Amino acid sequence: MSSNTYNGLEKIVPSTMADMVEVKLREYLKNKPFLPGDALPTEAELAEALGVSRNVLREALSRLRMLGMIESKKKRGMVLTKPDILGSFEKVLDPLIIDKDTLQDIFELRLVLEMGLADLLFLRKTDKDVEELEAIAKAEKYDSGKQFRIKSEIEFHGKLYEMTGNNTLKRFQSMLLPIFGYVVTSLEKKKIAGKVNHLDLVQILKKGTKEDFKEGMYEHLKPHFDRLKEIE
Amino acid sequence: MSSNTYNGLEKIVPSTMADMVEVKLREYLKNKPFLPGDALPTEAELAEALGVSRNVLREALSRLRMLGMIESKKKRGMVLTKPDILGSFEKVLDPLIIDKDTLQDIFELRLVLEMGLADLLFLRKTDKDVEELEAIAKAEKYDSGKQFRIKSEIEFHGKLYEMTGNNTLKRFQSMLLPIFGYVVTSLEKKKIAGKVNHLDLVQILKKGTKEDFKEGMYEHLKPHFDRLKEIE
Repeated sequence: MSSNTYNGLEKIVPSTMADMVEVKLREYLKNKPFLPGDALPTEAELAEALGVSRNVLREALSRLRMLGMIESKKKRGMVLTKPDILGSFEKVLDPLIIDKDTLQDIFELRLVLEMGLADLLFLRKTDKDVEELEAIAKAEKYDSGKQFRIKSEIEFHGKLYEMTGNNTLKRFQSMLLPIFGYVVTSLEKKKIAGKVNHLDLVQILKKGTKEDFKEGMYEHLKPHFDRLKEIE
Repeated sequence: MSSNTYNGLEKIVPSTMADMVEVKLREYLKNKPFLPGDALPTEAELAEALGVSRNVLREALSRLRMLGMIESKKKRGMVLTKPDILGSFEKVLDPLIIDKDTLQDIFELRLVLEMGLADLLFLRKTDKDVEELEAIAKAEKYDSGKQFRIKSEIEFHGKLYEMTGNNTLKRFQSMLLPIFGYVVTSLEKKKIAGKVNHLDLVQILKKGTKEDFKEGMYEHLKPHFDRLKEIE
């Protein structure tokens, strides 16, 4: 509620010319009915329209390029692209440069996603998907080296996300996985495993209900939830 | 599996000088034991060390600044900051520039998050939290204008995320909410509501179990899940 007390007033943030040009360009792209693939005005035209130097304009364009909003094409010049909403997120998602609290937040975020998957999964899973998942889970049994374990962990959970039919979700989780691995290392050392393993989860997908799967996934992740309780 | 067939080989992406300098700088910041707040070498020093022009260096630095990895301080020059992992993600998360498939993905992502919240919620909710949530839910009853409904929807669900004690999650959802609103508009027009409303969810938080809450949340979101089934 308190955040609404001064409704309409916004924090004043000092901005550089490039910041301002970036904002203007984003508004321009939004309000003009451009479609992905459409050619944009040239640098010279944009610089003149905005009354700024080519250098400042280029800095702003470079940011939009980095955000995946525009692309430079040979012969056609700049075109509008389908923005890559996770692209720049990915760049900063590095366990080595993220502070401890945020790492913990991201770790929990992945637990939340895993626990919330069941509904989409049961809506969209196919027999073929479940077979492929089973093959991944079965392959795990014959080797238990740590490298292999992490790889199959990624393969198994990655496949689950894929089965939701949601590309953004799948990509998001593949970005979160390295971080999950980073936080989990300490647990791995103790070799604590949930009561429900990957093969059990496959069986539930084959014969169980959505509710069974939700319970099963909780048991599978329980060592992590227990660790959260310890931290509290 | 197929993605591992050529393990070690990566797609070759043509890169500009600024791209290369950006990568080098990111590696440098990662491998040197800098802490947030530490001063970095000057622009002149960096440009010389990398053997690039000041213009190219500035473009790369500008991107790192945009990602929230560095900051320019008066008198102290550039310093390393705690990177804002959601900052640049937020910039492209605009319903008007995101394609329809991705909008649908994000809409589903939020459903997954809502369904997966219960475990953290029951681990960390306090009586005070539940009281505040109840106050929000009660206020809703006396006004049902559309503007107000969306506002209280945001307030109620926002409070739920806050109660998980996870800041990244809370911020992430506040970024996703406008998109949710965008997709939901068509549903709102039909005035379809779940069987379980906000006040019911509060009662479950007060007296029910985690499992009750999971069921209740599903019922609350059921119109959205039903719509997904129709799309299939």
